[in-house]
Amino acid sequence: MAWFRTLTRMSATAKTVPTAPVASASLLLTSLRNFSTGTAASPAVEDRPPPHGDLGPTGGGEKPRVVVLGSGWAGCRLMKGIDTSIYDVVCVSPRNHMVFTPLLASTCVGTLEFRSVAEPVGRIQPAISREPGSYFFLSNCKGIDAKNHRVICETVTDGPNTPDPWKFNISYDKLVIALGAEALTFGIHGVKEHAIFLREVHHAQEIRRRLLLNLMLSDVPGTTEQEKSRLLHCVVVGGGPTGVEFSGELSDFIMRDVRQRHAHVKDYIRVTLIEANEILSSFDDRLRRYATRQLTKSGVHLVRGIVKDVEPDKIVLDNGTEVPYGLLVWSTGVGPSSLVKSLDLPKAPGGRIGIDEWLRVPNVPDVYAIGDCSGFVESTGKPVLPALAQVAERQGKYLAGLLNRIGKAGGGRANSGAEVDLGDPFVYKHLGSMATLGRYKALVDLRQSKEGKGISLAGFLSWFIWRSAYLTRVISWRNRFYVAVNWLTTMVFGRDISRI
Amino acid sequence: MAWFRTLTRMSATAKTVPTAPVASASLLLTSLRNFSTGTAASPAVEDRPPPHGDLGPTGGGEKPRVVVLGSGWAGCRLMKGIDTSIYDVVCVSPRNHMVFTPLLASTCVGTLEFRSVAEPVGRIQPAISREPGSYFFLSNCKGIDAKNHRVICETVTDGPNTPDPWKFNISYDKLVIALGAEALTFGIHGVKEHAIFLREVHHAQEIRRRLLLNLMLSDVPGTTEQEKSRLLHCVVVGGGPTGVEFSGELSDFIMRDVRQRHAHVKDYIRVTLIEANEILSSFDDRLRRYATRQLTKSGVHLVRGIVKDVEPDKIVLDNGTEVPYGLLVWSTGVGPSSLVKSLDLPKAPGGRIGIDEWLRVPNVPDVYAIGDCSGFVESTGKPVLPALAQVAERQGKYLAGLLNRIGKAGGGRANSGAEVDLGDPFVYKHLGSMATLGRYKALVDLRQSKEGKGISLAGFLSWFIWRSAYLTRVISWRNRFYVAVNWLTTMVFGRDISRI
Repeated sequence: MAWFRTLTRMSATAKTVPTAPVASASLLLTSLRNFSTGTAASPAVEDRPPPHGDLGPTGGGEKPRVVVLGSGWAGCRLMKGIDTSIYDVVCVSPRNHMVFTPLLASTCVGTLEFRSVAEPVGRIQPAISREPGSYFFLSNCKGIDAKNHRVICETVTDGPNTPDPWKFNISYDKLVIALGAEALTFGIHGVKEHAIFLREVHHAQEIRRRLLLNLMLSDVPGTTEQEKSRLLHCVVVGGGPTGVEFSGELSDFIMRDVRQRHAHVKDYIRVTLIEANEILSSFDDRLRRYATRQLTKSGVHLVRGIVKDVEPDKIVLDNGTEVPYGLLVWSTGVGPSSLVKSLDLPKAPGGRIGIDEWLRVPNVPDVYAIGDCSGFVESTGKPVLPALAQVAERQGKYLAGLLNRIGKAGGGRANSGAEVDLGDPFVYKHLGSMATLGRYKALVDLRQSKEGKGISLAGFLSWFIWRSAYLTRVISWRNRFYVAVNWLTTMVFGRDISRI
Repeated sequence: MAWFRTLTRMSATAKTVPTAPVASASLLLTSLRNFSTGTAASPAVEDRPPPHGDLGPTGGGEKPRVVVLGSGWAGCRLMKGIDTSIYDVVCVSPRNHMVFTPLLASTCVGTLEFRSVAEPVGRIQPAISREPGSYFFLSNCKGIDAKNHRVICETVTDGPNTPDPWKFNISYDKLVIALGAEALTFGIHGVKEHAIFLREVHHAQEIRRRLLLNLMLSDVPGTTEQEKSRLLHCVVVGGGPTGVEFSGELSDFIMRDVRQRHAHVKDYIRVTLIEANEILSSFDDRLRRYATRQLTKSGVHLVRGIVKDVEPDKIVLDNGTEVPYGLLVWSTGVGPSSLVKSLDLPKAPGGRIGIDEWLRVPNVPDVYAIGDCSGFVESTGKPVLPALAQVAERQGKYLAGLLNRIGKAGGGRANSGAEVDLGDPFVYKHLGSMATLGRYKALVDLRQSKEGKGISLAGFLSWFIWRSAYLTRVISWRNRFYVAVNWLTTMVFGRDISRI
């Protein structure tokens, strides 16, 4: 009962008023002397190994080191499953958290808080913050030197008053590449400059800030009717689950909250979803039709078209139509990042890093690749798996088991473990797809493939399944609690509209 | 039971699969045609008054208009109390929410969420988002043309892809200036460039990002011991309640969370509080000594010194000592903003806008000033009140009552109401001061003045009073709920460390 003790000590303190002057001159001098020497201020300096520019190869007294590049679904699931009594884990990523991507669209409009969908790496694998040989490095991978078993990294910086970036090397015993993918722009001019993707928390924050700014600017005297229509026209390009979920959440936000909280401009705000082919192409025809009907009903304009050019305030379609916009969200799928393309490793069809059925990069010892950055090489005879969270998660889990097995058999060190029995290869079994349409509606497609048989549902029950399924998949109890609280608050009080 | 209806409709839908194609070519053409004309897409355009560059004087059919400059404690409390059946309210501010400043320090380290301390103006006074004549304008005030009863405003912009700012005028019947104050830098070189203030939510966000960045960079290979010590040295300048509360929260964060979550660098992180005089000078001597003891015990170095110069990675004190820092928080009090200084209005001693005992700006009809930007003119014989939330709030509440009284008596219009009986003048009664020291400790000083008699408490009971008092003062039930949930979560799970 730390509180109670505090309270008791408290009362004692309150009675006996001390008479000694507290911030004495000598105390100040001691503190100040520390400043000039810098390192002397830290009591434990001499106990630590002297720092170098590199994290060198592991020695005899150390555990073998697994280096994980990336902190997405694949990398985080792997780290969660790694046996840290066998391995030290070093994670290299420009963000210190995993994003729970299926719920990211909900944060843009305030249904969920940003923090509820971010899970710090140190919470997923606590060894990273506690074990002396395990680390998280806020850095980007710049290259892989597979011959010497090391990766080249560069620290992340953040504007003025933060240190300039510097490079360093990390030696690995086992390397797991889980670098993810990049949003596809198909080389269309202006997309990177003017559109917002929806893959990271800062994207969702930017969408939210822009949306609220536009809502407020439309209200200010001096805005023409035409400008109001433009500012409040939200255009989503790409009819996959992300684009559809965002459109659904947005129209829900407009119907439920904007009409009340921004009554002056409520008739100007519109959502348009542009898709070159069909929306939700991976779903059952019936579900797709249901989604189309629901979106249209909730005010989303569905437009079939191909974007040719993106300008600061309008996009141009291939038939010449100009579409003015105030907010442009781009979600037309993902492809290999330029770093992945540049790596001198075997490749799968489509440019991803090639892997065999045990998720190893063929002919490159101790290197594995999982998630959106990887694909089976042609010789396996297997198709490249879709860029889905469930694929990445399953691969991370499988590989953690595989590495633990190798480590237990004594093959954890670099260039060892070739003789270990690897067990069954990785087999992907699709569990189905889900997408929410906002306003208590969702789609659940539990068939294993588009042609397969199984259950497909649409409507409120699906929405309930969708919420329950994701709530149980949120990794930490803390965030599970917060997601539930956020959903409850949104139902009771509506969404928050402060632009912070 | 909207849900139940939805569910019923849902099941019906699931059974009858429609056969008509949904996104037909003709539908698409209609949608696209709308884009080229712009305004035609909005159905209600013809019902609205055509927009102009200005919001002109109110006419006979309209309610008189109260224009409020600012959305701080004073302005928001005023808006909350204004009788919107008498007046239309127009608020001009660069932020669409009020910041619950006493709890802002807690958000930097993740004890509270940012959104829990932000209260949207539209939630404080719902008429602003609903009534046809009431508005919130996301704009800065640029000047006041008291002769013509109007204010000059300029819209806020937010980087590329947002509209360029434009100017517009708003005519007022009654004008309430609640522009607040600016952080004092005493003309010290480098403060504005390198230090972070702690007055807005974005300041707290920046402090948090910087702190987490420095914690992570210190861990990366290649950081020297000296650089680690510098990066993890958090310096707070100013020993008022804000500086002390932030130092307390920070050391609490370090003791409770950093040691666990950033174990590799825990011995390097230090907090130094620099104050030229005594900390918490407005509090009882006994409480001050208690605070000094508590802060020292929880690892905060208290240094008496005057800052002479601020460089990107160190500050220089007047005795020549150089203090390297990784994070510098500046909180040495507030003074009149450059806009307030530039306004051609009567002034109080110290440069604030002069007011009489009814909070009117003398000799300027229909103009009132409240909060940190205002002070009694010398002729009232009253001292300028301290820049405190409770002063601002009390003035806002008083002025709302006064304006309602004037309005009810038919004096709401510009240049009218001179003959209305104003009732009692504003009298400020100090209710006492509170400050938390982190870790279940706080100070509560319930004396009306430094020399007065009354209760003063320190310790756990104070901390309990502190939390309860602020929880009841948080404006909306939504945020009250969130603050309680945040506090609970922090106790159970510790603070969140994801850098988003």
